[in-house]
This record gives sequence, C-alpha cells and structure tokens, in this order.
Amino acid sequence: MAGTARSAGTAKGASSATTARTTVLGQNQYGKAENRVVRVVREGTTHHIKDLSVSIALSGDLEDVHYHGSNAHVLPTDTTKNTVYAFAREHGVDSAEEFGILLARHFVTSQEPIHRARIRIEEYAWERIATADPGGPAHSFVRKGQETRFCEVTHDGERWRIVSGLQGLTVLNSTHSEFHGYIKDRYTTLKEAYDRILATDVSARWRYRWDADDDGPAPDWDTAWDRARTHLLRAFAETYSRSLQQTLYGMGTRVIEGDDLIDEIRLSLPNNHHFLVDLEPFGLSNDHEVYLAADRPYGLIEATVLRDGAEALIPADPLDL
Amino acid sequence: MAGTARSAGTAKGASSATTARTTVLGQNQYGKAENRVVRVVREGTTHHIKDLSVSIALSGDLEDVHYHGSNAHVLPTDTTKNTVYAFAREHGVDSAEEFGILLARHFVTSQEPIHRARIRIEEYAWERIATADPGGPAHSFVRKGQETRFCEVTHDGERWRIVSGLQGLTVLNSTHSEFHGYIKDRYTTLKEAYDRILATDVSARWRYRWDADDDGPAPDWDTAWDRARTHLLRAFAETYSRSLQQTLYGMGTRVIEGDDLIDEIRLSLPNNHHFLVDLEPFGLSNDHEVYLAADRPYGLIEATVLRDGAEALIPADPLDL
Amino acid sequence: MAGTARSAGTAKGASSATTARTTVLGQNQYGKAENRVVRVVREGTTHHIKDLSVSIALSGDLEDVHYHGSNAHVLPTDTTKNTVYAFAREHGVDSAEEFGILLARHFVTSQEPIHRARIRIEEYAWERIATADPGGPAHSFVRKGQETRFCEVTHDGERWRIVSGLQGLTVLNSTHSEFHGYIKDRYTTLKEAYDRILATDVSARWRYRWDADDDGPAPDWDTAWDRARTHLLRAFAETYSRSLQQTLYGMGTRVIEGDDLIDEIRLSLPNNHHFLVDLEPFGLSNDHEVYLAADRPYGLIEATVLRDGAEALIPADPLDL
Amino acid sequence: MAGTARSAGTAKGASSATTARTTVLGQNQYGKAENRVVRVVREGTTHHIKDLSVSIALSGDLEDVHYHGSNAHVLPTDTTKNTVYAFAREHGVDSAEEFGILLARHFVTSQEPIHRARIRIEEYAWERIATADPGGPAHSFVRKGQETRFCEVTHDGERWRIVSGLQGLTVLNSTHSEFHGYIKDRYTTLKEAYDRILATDVSARWRYRWDADDDGPAPDWDTAWDRARTHLLRAFAETYSRSLQQTLYGMGTRVIEGDDLIDEIRLSLPNNHHFLVDLEPFGLSNDHEVYLAADRPYGLIEATVLRDGAEALIPADPLDL
Repeated sequence: MAGTARSAGTAKGASSATTARTTVLGQNQYGKAENRVVRVVREGTTHHIKDLSVSIALSGDLEDVHYHGSNAHVLPTDTTKNTVYAFAREHGVDSAEEFGILLARHFVTSQEPIHRARIRIEEYAWERIATADPGGPAHSFVRKGQETRFCEVTHDGERWRIVSGLQGLTVLNSTHSEFHGYIKDRYTTLKEAYDRILATDVSARWRYRWDADDDGPAPDWDTAWDRARTHLLRAFAETYSRSLQQTLYGMGTRVIEGDDLIDEIRLSLPNNHHFLVDLEPFGLSNDHEVYLAADRPYGLIEATVLRDGAEALIPADPLDL
Repeated sequence: MAGTARSAGTAKGASSATTARTTVLGQNQYGKAENRVVRVVREGTTHHIKDLSVSIALSGDLEDVHYHGSNAHVLPTDTTKNTVYAFAREHGVDSAEEFGILLARHFVTSQEPIHRARIRIEEYAWERIATADPGGPAHSFVRKGQETRFCEVTHDGERWRIVSGLQGLTVLNSTHSEFHGYIKDRYTTLKEAYDRILATDVSARWRYRWDADDDGPAPDWDTAWDRARTHLLRAFAETYSRSLQQTLYGMGTRVIEGDDLIDEIRLSLPNNHHFLVDLEPFGLSNDHEVYLAADRPYGLIEATVLRDGAEALIPADPLDL
Repeated sequence: MAGTARSAGTAKGASSATTARTTVLGQNQYGKAENRVVRVVREGTTHHIKDLSVSIALSGDLEDVHYHGSNAHVLPTDTTKNTVYAFAREHGVDSAEEFGILLARHFVTSQEPIHRARIRIEEYAWERIATADPGGPAHSFVRKGQETRFCEVTHDGERWRIVSGLQGLTVLNSTHSEFHGYIKDRYTTLKEAYDRILATDVSARWRYRWDADDDGPAPDWDTAWDRARTHLLRAFAETYSRSLQQTLYGMGTRVIEGDDLIDEIRLSLPNNHHFLVDLEPFGLSNDHEVYLAADRPYGLIEATVLRDGAEALIPADPLDL
Repeated sequence: MAGTARSAGTAKGASSATTARTTVLGQNQYGKAENRVVRVVREGTTHHIKDLSVSIALSGDLEDVHYHGSNAHVLPTDTTKNTVYAFAREHGVDSAEEFGILLARHFVTSQEPIHRARIRIEEYAWERIATADPGGPAHSFVRKGQETRFCEVTHDGERWRIVSGLQGLTVLNSTHSEFHGYIKDRYTTLKEAYDRILATDVSARWRYRWDADDDGPAPDWDTAWDRARTHLLRAFAETYSRSLQQTLYGMGTRVIEGDDLIDEIRLSLPNNHHFLVDLEPFGLSNDHEVYLAADRPYGLIEATVLRDGAEALIPADPLDL
C-alpha cells in the first residue's frame, strides 16, 4: 500500500512485454464518476432519504488495456455504475463511509485483476419541511446548507484508508482577527491590521485511525462526522486570531483532540478578503462598518495537523514535490 | 412607466438628430453590477451582518453617449459603486428592499439625465455559530442554505415597482406525486406514473402592490419575505401533485392568499427528474427505493399567478413574444 | 402575437371557471430544456457534426392542468425531448434556426391545445483536427472557441420571430479607448482615462425581419450568422472608443447596416475592468504595461439598436418596467 | 526534495517545542492564489498581450505562525501578489514557465524562512482580430479556445520541477472507436460497441527532465508546449481505439516520443458519453446518426505514461494511497 510502489513494478513488467517500447505505464485508475443516487426508505408515511454522488476508481492488472487495447481485465465503468445502484437497493445506505466500504470490498474481492478500489462520495444534506400537520405524512424535504459532506474509502484487499470531510462550509468572524508583525520587503505595502474580518470556506479532510477489518469495530461514521464539523465551527469562532494559519492549526487540533479515532486532518482555507472601504473621499468615517467582499485574488492557507506520533497519509497536494 | 414606451420616443428623437442615421437607439441601461457589500453593526460584543450583491442599472437621456461618445450625461459606473458603499455607511441596510429604494431614489432625483433606476440585490443569509459560552461575544457566523434572497426595485421618479423573491431553494417530495392522463402522440414513450419523486429548485419573484410614496406605509419587507418563503415550502409539501404545473399554481396561490400585499408571483420550476432505476437485470425489485438523480435535460415549468383583477407586470421571459 | 395579450384572455376565462377562485393564471409555458443532441453525417470517411442544446417551451390552452391537475392538454416534456431526437434523424440539422423552425411548426400544428412554441438552441462549434494524412479519414474534431451560437425561434401558428445571436465572445482592445468628461458628483473618485484597456464578453441577439411563411425565402441562416459575428468583431476593433456605450452602438449599427435582413439587435456588454497597477511604491513606472484583470464588480452596458423605423421586439430585460 | 520528508522532520522539531502539545504540524503552504495579470507590450502600433492567473504557495520555517500566531517568518500573501505585478513590469512575461521560475527563485532566495516555492500559472490564449486595414494598428484581440495552458514551477533552492500542461481541450472522434471483450459480471448490462463516438476533455500535465540551473539550457517552453499539444491532438485523431485507456496511452507516448525533453505525462480523460438514441419506437433507424450527449455520470480514465527508466514524480491523485 506504499505510494512508491505504484509505478516501479508496473513499469518493469510492462517494459519487458515488448522490446521496442520506449514508454511504460505508471499509476493508473479508472471508473465511473459522479453517479447520483437517491435512496428512499419508507417507514409508514415517514420517509428518509440519502442523496449521494459516488465516484469509483479502480486499479490493478491493467497493462494490457493500455498497451494493446485488450479489455479482458476491464470491468466496464458502466458496470461500476450499475453496482452502485444495485448496492443501494441490496444493502441500503447506512452512512456514506459504510456504503463506500461495501463497494470497495466488492470490487477488490470479486474481480481478480482489480487490486485496489477508491470510492469517493459527496453527500448532500436535506432537512424536513415543517407542515401544518406535525403528525401527518413526512415525505417533504428542503436542501440544507451549501456545504457537502465528503468521504473517500480506499482498499487494497488488506488495509483500508477512510478519509472523511466537508467542503463549502463558509464562515466569518467580524472581529477577533489581527494580522501584523510580518516580514516587510521591497514589495510590501499591506497595512497592519488590528481588527479585521476573517472569513473562509472550510475544506477539511480527516483520516480515521481504523484501517483493517480486524482493527476492532469501525467508528460510528455519522456521529464522528457531526462531532468534527462542530469542532471546526467552534474552534473557528472561539479562536482569537493573529493569522489564518493559527486559526487553521487551532481548528485541526480541536478535531483531533475531540475524537481519539482521528489521527490526521488536512485543511485548505482560502482567505476570503473583506476590505474596509475607504469612505474618506465622501466625508464619511468607517469604523469597521462597511466592507467590500473580494473574489480574487485570495490568500490560500493549507496545512496538515497530525496527532503526535501519527503518520501523514493524506496527500498534501496533487502536484506537490 | 409602460413597457411599450421604452423605444418609440427615444428612437424618434434620436432619429431626427442626424439626417444620415440609419439606425436608432432603443431601450438602454447601464451601471455597475455585483457590488459585494458587507455591513457590520456592533451592539456591544454582539455583531449583526448583512451580506449583499447590489447591481445598478440606470436609464435616461443617454442618446449622446451612444451616438457620439459624449459622457456629459453619464454618471460613471464607478460612482454608482461608490454610492452603494457610502449609502451602506450613511443609511445602514435595514432590508434589501429598503436599501434598494434609497439607492433608486438617489440616482433618479440627484441626476437630471437619469430618469429611471433599477436596483437588483441578492442577499446571502448567515446564522450564528453556537459557542461554548452562550453569553459570550457573538461575532461568528456560518452561511445558511444555498438559496439566495432577491429583490428588484425600479423607480422612474414617480412610481415604484418592488419585486422580491428567492432562487436556489431546492425541495423534494418522495411521494404524493403522479403524472398520467397526458397526450400520447407518435413520439410519446413515457410510462404513466402513479407514485414518483417530485423535486425542483424554486425560483420565485413576487410583486408587492405598493407602488407609490403616497400609497400608505410600505410593507415590512423582511416579514413579508419570510412569510412568502414559508408559504412556498408548505404549499409544495402539502400539495398532492398530479403535475408540476398544479403544484406551481398551488404555491403561487398560497403566497398571494397568504399576504394581501402581494398581487403577482412568477415561478420557474425545473423538474429535477429522479428516475426509478431498473434493477430487474440484477434480479432485484425496486419498489420506490433507488433513484437516479438526472441533470439534463430537465422539464421546465414557468407561470405567473395573479390576484384576481391584478395586472401582470413581472415580465414572463427575456426574449418572449 | 402582442405581448400584452398573454394574460388578459387567459385570466378571464380561468376566472369564470370557478366562483371561489381568488387567483388566476397568467403567462405560462413548459417543455424540456437543454436536450443535448449530436447529429453526425457520414460522407464516405469524411464526417460532419452538429452539436446542439435544444430547449422547448410550449404555451396554449393549459388552464386545466394548473387549476385542476388534469393533463389532458399536456404533451409530456419527455415527448418534446423524443421529438428533438427523432427530428434530428428525420430532417437532419441544416442550421439551428431551420431546426428550430421545424420543431416549432410541429408542436403548434400537431397539437390543438398548443398555440405557441418557442425553441431555443445553443450550438457548439467544432473544427477538424489536422492529421498526418490530409487525404485520410476526417472524423476527428476539437471544440472551437468558448463562445456559443444562439437562436430562438417563436411561432404562434401564423407568424415567426427568429432571433439569432452569440454569447461568450471575449474581446479586448489594448488601446484606442478613453473615458472622460463624465458627471462628477459627491461620490465620484474615478480618474479620467485617456488610454485604457477595453474588454468585454459580447452577448448579442439580433432579430431577422422575416416573420411569415409567405414573407419570401428565409435568410441563409449560417451565412447571416457568420457575417454578423464578423461585423461585431470588426466594429469592436475599429472603433476608437470614448465610452463602451459608443462602442456598443457602433457594433449594433455595423450589424444592421451590414445585413438588410436584420432589423434589431440587443447587446449586453460587461465592462471587464483592467486596472493599471500602481507600481510607484516599488519604484517602478507603469506606462500601460501591467494590468490587473478584475472580476467583480463590473460595468454592465445594455442597449437595443434598431433599423430606423423598425419596431423593438426583443425584450430588453426579464424584469424590466 | 523527497515527498516523505515533508512531515517527519517538521513534526519532530515542533513536537519538542512544547511539552503539552498533542498535535504537530505537517506539510503546509500558503500564498496568494489567482492573481490575474495582463501584460501589454507595445511595438509601435502593434501590441502583444499575455494573460495569466498566477498562484503562489510558499513553505518553510513556519511552525511559529501555526503554533503561536507569530508572523515574524510570514511574507504576507499581499506581498506575493505585489511581487507578481512588479515582476511582470521588471522582467516581462516571456513564457509562463520562465515567469514562474523568476518568481519561485525570488521567494526562495530572498526570504530566509521560505524554503520552497510553488508557482502555478494558468494562461489564456488570445488571437488577433482581423481588421479592414491589414497594415493598420494591431491592438485588438479575441479569446481563442476554451482550453487553458497550465504550468507549475516548484523550487526548493536547489532543484526545479517544471510541469506544463493544458486543460479543457475538448475532442471527439465520430468513429474508429470500439469497446468490447470486457469482463461481464452480475451487474453488467452494457452492450458491446463496434462503432461509437469517443469524446473527452483532455487534461494533461507533462514534466520536463530539466531540473537544475546547471542542467544545461532550459527548454524553449513555448515551442515545447505547442508541440505537445499538437501531438495530443494528432494521437487522439489517429488512434483506432479499442478503449479510452489505449487512446490515453497512445497520446502520452506520442508526447514523450515527440520531445526528448519530456520524461513523464499524466493524463486525465473523462469519457464524455454519447449514447446512440433508440429511435425504433418512432419507426426510425439510427445508423450512427443521432446521439445524446450525456453529462453525468462519466467514465474517468487517468494514467501516467513514463519514458522508460524515468521516475514518476507527478503525483497521481490528491488523496491517493
């Protein structure tokens, strides 16, 4: 399951397959992306729904299809799609993580050429619409929030990696944020700030320690997710910030300290700048009252926070050194 | 303020201005769009925020700038932007509608060549983040919902048109929706449905009757908006639907019957198809359990609902016959 | 076909249908939106493709479905989708306009309750990929440009309205643009500009005079569209601009003067601001060399240009007074 | 510069800094993202433009700001933005890659705490608008294509990694594509295809071998980019495809074989499904004539192709095992 194994072995085998080959295949994966499945459970006239976008990526013994166009080892992406819908019927959707585990295990164990499966799921939250008759039928829902829940389940036949998270959680502190004492060089014009708006769209991905079937019972994924979200919000609100980096670290630490099943978290926080507008030309003061919310450019602060002693396994960056 | 007046007069005057002209100017407007303003009010350590995107469109005596590039009648779009920020400081933002009224009145009354102003505002809702200390400082917010509140204020120096609304309110009924008894022609393959998911993204714009300063006190815009939203949600949930058209009409009627200050509403409802997946090939039943949420194409149902006797003033469609 | 007719008659009839009704139905339309159809024509090993997104909107005798949920007059949106694909096979796609005419005529003439059809089409352009063997097979294409071609065909059984256009045509002049001599009020801070970048995303919709089957032969739609696009580009490039309004008017006039089949054009031009960056703090000059391309806010200039004597029929604005 | 070094050393040092710490900092980076800069060069009345979006990410000795909110080692993101604009003036923009190298070298060598800089640049292409006077002024441009050029330059003070690429290059073959001979399991319903449309949006990132200042002259970045793009297009067009994987491998190989300065390429190819529409219910044949272009779900095929013997350095996937 080591990251470095991904090209070497593959490349060597492939290379020997033909004497004239000047290139070899490195890491590769394929599958159907963004399968939108809605699962309804009827409990009398009370309905429950789960709303997911499921993306499949499979890897394995796939040299032949790349080198020669032979599909003998290829389970069609269309089949991976069908499997998502069939599994939603056969097994239901308890949580996104549990559903991802079912799918990943299926692909790896049922098809010999498939050695690894990665299931990514986005989940969209709904809440009930209150109606005039509180005891009446309950089958009406309204989308809740703009943020999406995320999970990624990866399995290689032996071990698991379960990363959960969220994106699009937009938060703002209208005070308790400063920024000063930084490096000034030839290109620095920024004024030090002692009271500013701090706003960001939280993108967070945390990794659970649980990584094998014999590793004891799996976490209660929904409870853990709710708890992590609450910790992120509270840490953001309760941190008196002297930099967004400090806030980020505080948020990550709060999640790890608040759940001993989580070992690592990666946060990506854009600094959604709110500039205090200069109203002096109009003879007006502006004592932290009127701000311009800017789009681009934006600061971007990214970091991993680890439980002391834990290994960093969430990749930092798709094209990182 | 009649829609038909917009080009005729203008065109005639312009035409006579130059003998060689083969073309004339029709309806025209200009201004700065999407001014993003955040207004903070501090009440001790409890803060309140308003978050708006304000778009300005001005019309008037503007032939010269189009015909000859003379800007003598042009208030720069940059100035309209500055005015938004200055007004947020000078007058605060009570409601989006009230803020729009202040701006529209200012442009039309302060600049002789400007005869009409249209202010469109999108508002983004925030709710407080609960913190460990409920009596502590309250300056932390999280964006609420994906829907946006909308208003459009138009003023020609005499009369007002106030249209409020919302967009992006995504709702779903998992039952109580049928569709049958429709026309079947050569190209019809659709199976009749007696129990289907009905889902849509509500886009609604309603017009208040109030249209002149001497027309009595203006509505309480925030209360009216909340009430209309509640009516839309409840009517959607409580309607046993035999077509999305019927649901739409029920929603519009509920808003008008629920607020005697509203005379007209225009609804645009995409039919977000959820197809029951055929699981028979896998030996599985699917008794309204597993659905595929489709993107495109989608049904699109649009209609105006009017208080009996009211005039239709919300344009149906940008390029309508 | 008058715009004012759309609600009055409908409302009256509907109102009398039930004594208790407090609301009436106004303008309404429905259909399937964004049907994505790709039509391939094989000429030996040389293939040709048309790539369209077709949106249908039907109006007519539809009170019952809104008031009572009776679908007896409703041709399902699914059927309108099927018709698009079947017509692509039966009739081919000569031009987007011609295809829209076929569809609109079909819906209005084949279904008694349908009195009006509006077909909107977006077309995506492709160009051939040059290969090593110029005389070889020609079935490979690459998407051309980011702009899309647009047309809207509306038919009420007697007359036609054909509006063609484009959107997303992004253009930039790095000089020959000034802006000065404008109104200065209390809120004006803008510096006059004697040499600035002028950039915009052209959105244009023009109306052909042809509006009835017995109105002589219809224009050659593809030739007319190409010519209009060329005129827009050239007029933008060749106009020494003192305001974007002046440029807009010049562009519109060029299109009308360049094609005597076009009577009206509506242009919507965002002013994509490029701000000259102040590099003085770094001891650097900036003689029109380095610009910041801004996103929001942006100026927005909209106007109709009419052939002298023509009627304005392209609606100015969806929610216009 | 090894990927594994990013957390271990950092974590250890940080951990010892405070006895009570339960979490440690892992990989982190910060900077200003999406700085939109347009550089104009005037050669008489002929102008040239470069249009970039530049994103900065800096790493280094940044524990203090995360742990304690001390900004003493923080060069403000605002300063990194200013530097982009100042450098555009001081050095011009020869190519995106060269500009990235200048910036990365500057940040790493001018600020002791900054040990690594990663500069990502998107470039938007423009072409000249033909005007009536071919010898006249040439300062008018129209955006060319929807694809964007990409580069990422990473520097740690010693070595360089230069990855160039593109995204949004949409291509389609209307024949010469088959898909059959694949695994059939319980969930497989897909029919084998012997003549289908193959369409994708090419996202490609290739790595140059050049990685040190003393590694001889750097490639001619513009020439190399143009060549790679041409190879991608031609390989797509000229490959008779039995799977998208095979086409992908052929495209990657063509780029590497066509430029001995490129050692590795990562391709991500969505399978933009075009389904042959079943027109039998309407009594119509459909001999590869009418297709439905689908949005979601889509197949997603991703792989790295390496020059034989080269090391895989482009990360496969942000959250990959």
